[in-house]
Amino acid sequence: MIIDRLYREAVEKSPICVGLDTKLEYLPEYLLESNKSIEDKIFQFNKMIIDNTFDLVACYKVQIAFYESLGLEGLKAYSRTLKYIKEKGKISIADVKRGDISSTAEAYGKAHFEGDFEADFITVNPYMGIDSISPYYKYMKDRDKGIFMLIRTSNKGSEDFQELIVKDRELFMEVADKCKTWGEDFIGEEGFSRVGGVVGLTYPEEFLKIKNNNPNTFFLIPGYGAQGGKGEDIKEIFKDGICGVINSSRGIITAHKGKCEDEGFVDLIRENTLKMKGDIEHWLR
Amino acid sequence: MIIDRLYREAVEKSPICVGLDTKLEYLPEYLLESNKSIEDKIFQFNKMIIDNTFDLVACYKVQIAFYESLGLEGLKAYSRTLKYIKEKGKISIADVKRGDISSTAEAYGKAHFEGDFEADFITVNPYMGIDSISPYYKYMKDRDKGIFMLIRTSNKGSEDFQELIVKDRELFMEVADKCKTWGEDFIGEEGFSRVGGVVGLTYPEEFLKIKNNNPNTFFLIPGYGAQGGKGEDIKEIFKDGICGVINSSRGIITAHKGKCEDEGFVDLIRENTLKMKGDIEHWLR
Repeated sequence: MIIDRLYREAVEKSPICVGLDTKLEYLPEYLLESNKSIEDKIFQFNKMIIDNTFDLVACYKVQIAFYESLGLEGLKAYSRTLKYIKEKGKISIADVKRGDISSTAEAYGKAHFEGDFEADFITVNPYMGIDSISPYYKYMKDRDKGIFMLIRTSNKGSEDFQELIVKDRELFMEVADKCKTWGEDFIGEEGFSRVGGVVGLTYPEEFLKIKNNNPNTFFLIPGYGAQGGKGEDIKEIFKDGICGVINSSRGIITAHKGKCEDEGFVDLIRENTLKMKGDIEHWLR
Repeated sequence: MIIDRLYREAVEKSPICVGLDTKLEYLPEYLLESNKSIEDKIFQFNKMIIDNTFDLVACYKVQIAFYESLGLEGLKAYSRTLKYIKEKGKISIADVKRGDISSTAEAYGKAHFEGDFEADFITVNPYMGIDSISPYYKYMKDRDKGIFMLIRTSNKGSEDFQELIVKDRELFMEVADKCKTWGEDFIGEEGFSRVGGVVGLTYPEEFLKIKNNNPNTFFLIPGYGAQGGKGEDIKEIFKDGICGVINSSRGIITAHKGKCEDEGFVDLIRENTLKMKGDIEHWLR
């Protein structure tokens, strides 16, 4: 099962998820100024990052917004990136945060679990309730796919709704509970469900509360580095073993900016990935 | 301002929003079996619907999920449909329900308010809070665009979270309040804000509660027809004047299914649009 593969990759390589939130401005000058198409430039950048990090990390998260913002050409690069991740035997998480119901959610399932934009996992927004989640079940069963539900995000504005008190606890605990219940039929050999959860590293105490409530939930964890999450916070969260993958986007893929604008840029990206790996391993010891 | 234009179109033509939730199976046989590309078939279907309804309705809502599910070719048809709506002088609502934060939300703004996928309005999911909404402000100001925030959706599962009680009232009322506050700087000549709200017609009493709380909110109203909302429910909601557009997707664009599979299909689509217009006008009298 895909969730077992993801867990094992996190244990064997490292619990790092590289966020390919690729913006044109992140590209080194030599590539940006080449006479390739935008599609080729973006794909080439991603490919070089993948080629130089795949032995160090668990998976790649591709944030579709940055590709959508470049229109059809951007989405061609998005499609090629997902295909390349698969070709390299790696796991992909499409960070699409789709949230819609019944036949529309089914269409999103078809869009992101097969065809041009096929990924292994997608992120989903649960605000519309169970009918925004259940349409993905058939893809999870038939095509061995998984989802990560937004539970507690790493941004300041998450307090607007996620922190509100319902039934004597925060709304995000209610969402965490649903994540647990809805994921019960999808638990793999390693004890984790293919219905995972997104919980930011920026609120470590809340993370522990959610983790204790959701022993079978595997987490996609944003907020490391640029957003303030520290390696130290990982110590507590992973004290009984690895239970998620930690995403780093800018912290890795912009490592070269202001330092190297030629083909050597990937060395700096690999170096930052190794540094993050070292940081996490230090706290896992 | 775009919200004034939308209001006036709703008053002058009708408060109908035609939902172009186009699936291949909705196409009449003559078109489906033609030797056009998928892109051309989908676009042709949409174009014929627009050509035969534009004088009767306020706007068109394009549900991106159905186009995404057809991959890159589907998105080409999506792009051409949006361009054609503009060419005909009509208003488009991109039903994308995007919900992400800061630079990612900015990228979605760039994606859907300019370039290949430019629309007049987009739907957004507020679950991540203010930083999932504020990145759109600059597009709203600079390019005269608008958003519709999900407040209370028309599906059964909306009870999972939207109905939960926070601060002695339902979560959706909290969201409605934020919609009001966040929209205060964007109110047009007709008294409505470019920060609109999505509220389903399936819960008429709750709709009234939200409307009374949000006098400057213009609504995008799903749930008419197939989902159970009746013309009668509109009477109360619009009793002080039109304050939103009522979406119908399948109720209009599948009017011909099982009845007509040749070019005459659009006559049945126009007929159903006229029927819906008559139904609404009856209750507006």
